[in-house]
Amino acid sequence: MSLKLNVVPFVSVDSMMKLVNAIGIERFLVELAACIEADFRRWENFDKTPRVASHSAEGVIELMPTSDGEVYGFKYVNGHPKNTRDGRQTVTAFGVLADVSTGYPVLLTEMTILTALRTAAMSAVAGKYLAPKGARTMAVIGNGAQSEFQALAFKALLGVDRLRLYDIDRAASLRCARNLAGYGFDVTICSTVEDAVQGAEIVTTVTADKQNATILTDNLVGAGVFINGVGGDCPGKTELHRDILLRSGIFVEYTPQTRIEGEIQQLAPDHPVTELWEVIAGRKEGRTTEAQITLFDSVGFAIEDFSALRYVRSQLQTVPHYEELDLLADPDEPRDLFGMLLRAQAAQAA
Amino acid sequence: MSLKLNVVPFVSVDSMMKLVNAIGIERFLVELAACIEADFRRWENFDKTPRVASHSAEGVIELMPTSDGEVYGFKYVNGHPKNTRDGRQTVTAFGVLADVSTGYPVLLTEMTILTALRTAAMSAVAGKYLAPKGARTMAVIGNGAQSEFQALAFKALLGVDRLRLYDIDRAASLRCARNLAGYGFDVTICSTVEDAVQGAEIVTTVTADKQNATILTDNLVGAGVFINGVGGDCPGKTELHRDILLRSGIFVEYTPQTRIEGEIQQLAPDHPVTELWEVIAGRKEGRTTEAQITLFDSVGFAIEDFSALRYVRSQLQTVPHYEELDLLADPDEPRDLFGMLLRAQAAQAA
Repeated sequence: MSLKLNVVPFVSVDSMMKLVNAIGIERFLVELAACIEADFRRWENFDKTPRVASHSAEGVIELMPTSDGEVYGFKYVNGHPKNTRDGRQTVTAFGVLADVSTGYPVLLTEMTILTALRTAAMSAVAGKYLAPKGARTMAVIGNGAQSEFQALAFKALLGVDRLRLYDIDRAASLRCARNLAGYGFDVTICSTVEDAVQGAEIVTTVTADKQNATILTDNLVGAGVFINGVGGDCPGKTELHRDILLRSGIFVEYTPQTRIEGEIQQLAPDHPVTELWEVIAGRKEGRTTEAQITLFDSVGFAIEDFSALRYVRSQLQTVPHYEELDLLADPDEPRDLFGMLLRAQAAQAA
Repeated sequence: MSLKLNVVPFVSVDSMMKLVNAIGIERFLVELAACIEADFRRWENFDKTPRVASHSAEGVIELMPTSDGEVYGFKYVNGHPKNTRDGRQTVTAFGVLADVSTGYPVLLTEMTILTALRTAAMSAVAGKYLAPKGARTMAVIGNGAQSEFQALAFKALLGVDRLRLYDIDRAASLRCARNLAGYGFDVTICSTVEDAVQGAEIVTTVTADKQNATILTDNLVGAGVFINGVGGDCPGKTELHRDILLRSGIFVEYTPQTRIEGEIQQLAPDHPVTELWEVIAGRKEGRTTEAQITLFDSVGFAIEDFSALRYVRSQLQTVPHYEELDLLADPDEPRDLFGMLLRAQAAQAA
């Protein structure tokens, strides 16, 4: 990439779409999942901080930094459930990678699309370790912006090819089904949650209300199911009835963060949970019996974004969908910042 | 500005130089100082967090967020003293403003140049309250990237027009003098710190070593002087002998941060200091006697960056030096992120 010191490669929304489509979305999800697994295996190398959140009545703005000692990454992300009323996204995001040895940013990228991809890839990685063997049927409760990504990630990584869709807004289910036409799914649109979970070995909940809701009641969860709980991801926002949690094996990304933001905010602060990296690294067991209910209490952690940023950066070398952004002051003489201003003035006057 | 939801105005390094030169650097400093004063007056409205720092052997990468409840801002900034060896800047920065009600970014800008300007504007604001009345002579110890900005800010806000420059590298002093030619200063280049402080009512220290150094010894500081201590700004990096601190009235930005990063890391954690916002808001006294030694222990705080971001954003309406960055995914239908990818694919294939 560029050797110009002022330049940071920038992946716009348009470039990200071109990049994803050039690589192919299923391959992108598989390769991104491999990056996440690799980073989770070296979990202890990372500088881990809970996200820095700024809450308001309307939503939250968060910064999620992490570093592996060589590369530093952070994501800016908002969550504003009412945004859709005026045509905005509930969640938007962008991210930055930087070189730890110089502090210079080496990548700026949109992360709204990328976060959708990494969230789905992360869920499917969890599914590899927690879903019943040979699972092919997934219920998707909530058919908004994240639903198709979840479906494709579980297809690409686990071979899930039967979908049972439910949304309080039937139009959302219809759109999801339409968007997924041609990807080889057998899709059923359901009119109740009860209907959707029939025969599903995997239940993905991915609704968007900023409140404690009971998307899934205890009686709807049968033995052996893997629950991929994606939508309950901030304080005061949960999707599952507490009784489900009490009879599930619970797996989380980073315990201190999930206790605050995940489904387990409903439980005692010492309720036992397993961090997924320990399962991936072979230190703890994932699913232990066929009858066990397993729950991935997904909230999204900075290392996943780091993996996604790393993956995008690596791909830009062969699929160069990026622009060069003049982001960093680079005076000819490093200490002469003011002289650079003077020379720009002279150049403008000329 | 733009009504396109995907677009964030971006001020590149080149645009920032054009903006500063179009406004005029002294006017820019005066107006920016007024923004900082206004924000310091409403200090209690701000969400204040110490910066989130990621330290490594080579330096530090920091995120500095703040919000006034309506607008959210953060700065990314690094500090890598050895960077100059391979032609990089010690400090680079960029920043973002966002709308709290939607979480959408509304400005992305370079902040290397902008930080130099806000640091100088902040020092001159402190000088307004802490320097002896009618001060015209300033010693500047350390003639690197920040020196000219400090000189011009003190000229524009306080009328300082005599400079006494000292740097261990005489070439730096010569360059500073050359850069400031035509700005109406009477400049003396000095060969020792002792020489530089002769007759100076204001002493600005702005050296760059990442270590505890004694740039200024106690015997060099006479009665009535205002010390503008800018260079001591991170753990283990100080410039002033401890004895100077013990006989100075000490003024800081945000006490919890300055205790860790400022000159006062050399003092007991309960040593009395005054926060500058209290002086600006009229709650506490600044300089109390002619003979008092006053010290502004500058480390740089997020609210100053917030003021700078706000100021730049306000100027873009009349001096539109910015580009439109395609940073935010904006599907026609907010919940249909995946459909946007599909349509991009169709458009590429066509």
